[in-house]
Amino acid sequence: MKNKAYLNCLPRDEAQSMWRKSLSERGYFDRLPVESLPVTAALGRVTASTVYAKQSVPHYNGSAMDGIAVYAPDTFGAQETAPKKLTLLPPSSPFTPGGCYVVDTGDAMPAGTNAVIMIEDVHIAGGMAEIIAAAAPWQHVRIIGEDIVTGELVIPEHHVIAPVDIAALLATGLERLDVVKKPKVAVIPTGDELVATREELQPGSILDVNSHMLAAAVTEWGGEPIRKPIVKDNREAIEQALLESLAESDMVIINAGTSAGREDYTAHVLGAIGEVLVHGIAIKPGKPVVLAICQGKPVIGLPGYPVSAMLTAELFVRDILLARQKLPSQEPPQVEVTLAKAVTSTLGMEEYIRVSIGDVQGKRIAAPLSRGAGMISSLTKAQGVIRVDGGSTGLPAGFSMPVTLLRKHKPARTILSVGSHDLALELLGLHLRRQLKNVALSCANVGSMGGIMAIRNKEAHIAGIHLLDEHSGRYNVPFVKKYLPDLKGCLVHLAMREQGLIVSPGNPKGIRELRDLVRPEVTYINRQRGSGTRMLLDYELGKAGITPAAIAGYDKEVGTHMAVAASVAAGTADAGLGVRAAAQALALDFVPIAHEQYDLLLNFAPDDDCLQAIIVSLRSEDFRREVEHLGGYDLRNAGKIISVDG
Amino acid sequence: MKNKAYLNCLPRDEAQSMWRKSLSERGYFDRLPVESLPVTAALGRVTASTVYAKQSVPHYNGSAMDGIAVYAPDTFGAQETAPKKLTLLPPSSPFTPGGCYVVDTGDAMPAGTNAVIMIEDVHIAGGMAEIIAAAAPWQHVRIIGEDIVTGELVIPEHHVIAPVDIAALLATGLERLDVVKKPKVAVIPTGDELVATREELQPGSILDVNSHMLAAAVTEWGGEPIRKPIVKDNREAIEQALLESLAESDMVIINAGTSAGREDYTAHVLGAIGEVLVHGIAIKPGKPVVLAICQGKPVIGLPGYPVSAMLTAELFVRDILLARQKLPSQEPPQVEVTLAKAVTSTLGMEEYIRVSIGDVQGKRIAAPLSRGAGMISSLTKAQGVIRVDGGSTGLPAGFSMPVTLLRKHKPARTILSVGSHDLALELLGLHLRRQLKNVALSCANVGSMGGIMAIRNKEAHIAGIHLLDEHSGRYNVPFVKKYLPDLKGCLVHLAMREQGLIVSPGNPKGIRELRDLVRPEVTYINRQRGSGTRMLLDYELGKAGITPAAIAGYDKEVGTHMAVAASVAAGTADAGLGVRAAAQALALDFVPIAHEQYDLLLNFAPDDDCLQAIIVSLRSEDFRREVEHLGGYDLRNAGKIISVDG
Repeated sequence: MKNKAYLNCLPRDEAQSMWRKSLSERGYFDRLPVESLPVTAALGRVTASTVYAKQSVPHYNGSAMDGIAVYAPDTFGAQETAPKKLTLLPPSSPFTPGGCYVVDTGDAMPAGTNAVIMIEDVHIAGGMAEIIAAAAPWQHVRIIGEDIVTGELVIPEHHVIAPVDIAALLATGLERLDVVKKPKVAVIPTGDELVATREELQPGSILDVNSHMLAAAVTEWGGEPIRKPIVKDNREAIEQALLESLAESDMVIINAGTSAGREDYTAHVLGAIGEVLVHGIAIKPGKPVVLAICQGKPVIGLPGYPVSAMLTAELFVRDILLARQKLPSQEPPQVEVTLAKAVTSTLGMEEYIRVSIGDVQGKRIAAPLSRGAGMISSLTKAQGVIRVDGGSTGLPAGFSMPVTLLRKHKPARTILSVGSHDLALELLGLHLRRQLKNVALSCANVGSMGGIMAIRNKEAHIAGIHLLDEHSGRYNVPFVKKYLPDLKGCLVHLAMREQGLIVSPGNPKGIRELRDLVRPEVTYINRQRGSGTRMLLDYELGKAGITPAAIAGYDKEVGTHMAVAASVAAGTADAGLGVRAAAQALALDFVPIAHEQYDLLLNFAPDDDCLQAIIVSLRSEDFRREVEHLGGYDLRNAGKIISVDG
Repeated sequence: MKNKAYLNCLPRDEAQSMWRKSLSERGYFDRLPVESLPVTAALGRVTASTVYAKQSVPHYNGSAMDGIAVYAPDTFGAQETAPKKLTLLPPSSPFTPGGCYVVDTGDAMPAGTNAVIMIEDVHIAGGMAEIIAAAAPWQHVRIIGEDIVTGELVIPEHHVIAPVDIAALLATGLERLDVVKKPKVAVIPTGDELVATREELQPGSILDVNSHMLAAAVTEWGGEPIRKPIVKDNREAIEQALLESLAESDMVIINAGTSAGREDYTAHVLGAIGEVLVHGIAIKPGKPVVLAICQGKPVIGLPGYPVSAMLTAELFVRDILLARQKLPSQEPPQVEVTLAKAVTSTLGMEEYIRVSIGDVQGKRIAAPLSRGAGMISSLTKAQGVIRVDGGSTGLPAGFSMPVTLLRKHKPARTILSVGSHDLALELLGLHLRRQLKNVALSCANVGSMGGIMAIRNKEAHIAGIHLLDEHSGRYNVPFVKKYLPDLKGCLVHLAMREQGLIVSPGNPKGIRELRDLVRPEVTYINRQRGSGTRMLLDYELGKAGITPAAIAGYDKEVGTHMAVAASVAAGTADAGLGVRAAAQALALDFVPIAHEQYDLLLNFAPDDDCLQAIIVSLRSEDFRREVEHLGGYDLRNAGKIISVDG
């Protein structure tokens, strides 16, 4: 084995430059496959060489005005006090001294003429044209090559063809164009657990989605993907697939088998067939990356989790692919953001965290999304990614830093909802989007107390809260008074909603009340600390005199009502407190415990059209119907402003 | 006719909003044709409706670690001082109390187990697994729906599908996706002068390049172009083509016939078939635009010159096309620039001027390109466009203003060459590009004196100069001393070059010396004031005692050597002073007049790698050979630094 390194955990920038340099030294970027295309089919392609004009533009001397074409010396001496008359000649008749022709803009100058007089300055009558000023030779004439002369550079090499370039190429006489051939990139999905179709799915197997995602990324970066069939975790099979791919492509991506586990063969195979430059990079997610060169071509092993695979492709595939097409590195735009909440980070690892981004009262806020490498939802929700340096152990909330923007088409405005989770918020987002084009609602579920803090720190537009004050028995207002004494925005009622125990269909364990949770055969699934639902549970347990420690599963926390319902549906828990709508969504049973008041803290300037749109949505019949349809909601007072002074 | 307006010259923004509002009122943006595609083919497409998960992710309870799967209560009480032993069960055997299974990351949790202990924390021997700590229920288990729960929103409506979205859609069980159908846009080229192929070209006819350019622009903006055959300037034929196009498309572009001339039928046809909202907009170039609605669809007449057609398409087609796809307006990025030279502007007209852009000593400079509406070269050379307000009569050099960037793939650095034109500069640009990836050389030809001024105002990196001081007989140095006493950069020799009279092949008029230019049958073509060539001519004429007024054509100025040669080749002039290379390029004859010294003023910081690269290029054998091959050049001292102190 020629492995230079094995899980060596190189810093990211060192790995990138070693990778690029090694490929460069082997002449990878100099071998430039070229293909010839009709100019009209070359939009977006990269010129292989400099293009020179085969024909001048304009290609003839033409009139630049509507008027008469004259021989300039015939007009000398004409003036207002002493007009001259020229004879109008029929269009294709030969020129005679003292003659002229009527011409339109773009007409070829008739032989014998060398200037144009604008029609406005000519008086035509009786077959004669009377002029009152002399014409300078070549006035109002577009002469051959005035724009581009034969032999001049039209388009430089390694230039991406835009619509205007097509016009220039055609006008200068080019019909076909040599362009850089799209680099072929083979994508080999590997893994015993992978299946290609939904029909083959079963517990323990995973649908191969990465190879489609990576193929699409290759397409976006100008390459031509070749998606190979799934290969089992088998050294010979992987070797076979790699050799086949090398024969038909310019670059190979193997996904995954890149760790150092029992069945991780990627690094071994690459070491046997070529040279492994790097195995293991100090980034999170995405550490198990293999960078290799086989038969002079780059071969990269990417980790298996979707978030890791995408991130490492962006770091190690994109620039190589662009350079292979002679294109500059794409530096995605960056903007400065303030972190909505603290992030922790592992010392020695460069960490990449996906965020959603919104402007709150003039501050651009980034709300970190869930960080698991397997969390596909964090990929789709992300609008940007922040990078935490390897030398850092984390960043505090309120920290200001650059974020790299991920989406080409971004919504003009993202409304950040940071607080308690409720299914009605998603519907509110859709209603908002219908009223205000190009607005997106991004929800970070951090519980009611987290929402209040986000509003206090001006790091959210909306916070859903349902906090019961044990003393007054009132919802929300006491908390707003206490934590947001200077609230500039307002508190708006959304719904009364039913909370209860979500249980399996038919309630097989016969759970009727909270006391049933302490039965030994019952496993509970809990919500996170700081969430209104958790506070409601603790309040109700206290009232009933039940010790939390007596409940199996009390320590297992999830972040949303739907996650509670999903745990029950999956059989990992027998019960969990949540809203009726979550139970109904997954066809589970529901044991009502309490009705609670769910309100929205809105942090907008009074004249913000979003504020107006939210109130209008909340009060609309459509919204009420759709939310009540979810089950367990009462929206009769939705949209009512709640006084926090009283 | 229902024409509301006829060449009414509406302000651009009013026209835009009236256009959009009228289409909106007619429900144009609400009719949303939809098509269903495989998710894997949906990259870059726009979702027609919100997509909800059909399946949870993960879809089963799986191990999140390599280790052993256990029933948590079996492990309670295990500690370092009191280990517990569990029986290793074969993979598919039923669970028995006190048993455990070996699992890899991603494996389904075997029935009966509810927690995973990491392999590192287990000692396996003799069919038993020894553990030294209790496992909490559901530790290291990825539970069903942890990422996305069935029924949750995956992708909102009107969202552009990125590679990560494909992964999320597939993972949540979606195989096909409803996307917005690409709007079909018919492009009808009209004009008696247009021909479809090069073979048909003759003086007075023009190759139809606009329809290809506009079709490519439609493609870039997400539409599907339908290029129609060329239609003659004939009212019935245009009407026929329009009706046909309306039947098969969502939008129609007619190019051109939009003025108010004899043969401009577009507005008439649109008024007869539908309603003309606007005819004539107060912009330059591009005034004759017709905005109409026919059969509920937008129909736009664009002017015929390529620069006008492209600009007005960007202003009036792009946003409508994007809105039809439910996409937000694309606001191309803007940056702040300083104008390299003054621009004039017509009061009451909003003017759009294309520019090249380069950073000179920390100042971002925009050099205006030639402004003719027919100048295709200004389209390909432009990196940005500036907008001069209708209330302005022009802007001074040095004015600071925003520029809209035009190219998606821009060179990292543009080197601005502002000064005398020489063919060797284009070759220098190619050599530079080879040494420094991603550098582009942009040449503005303003003559030697213009170049000196540009360097003085820090508005150029390079200025080519060839200025003869009549008193000392020296080239360039006296001018640098006089006008650039504080020059921070340096003066570098490029070449000795031969200037002479460019004449037709075989020199039919027998031109042997400057004195022949005063012969009545000889027409001259001149270079612009301030150019070194013009100064050389005037110097030589003075020496020979020839009055400029005696030379026919002395007043007709063009901006480059190649334009002089092109005029001679076209027969619009019999002679013009220029370099031998220009004559040679167009196979013309050449009557030598003088040898002159052509040098480059270089305005770079001493450590700028561009400076180094230029010197290296100038001194290279390849460059010398290529330039000398142009004809009339002597590069033996190329790259020598010229002292301006001596």
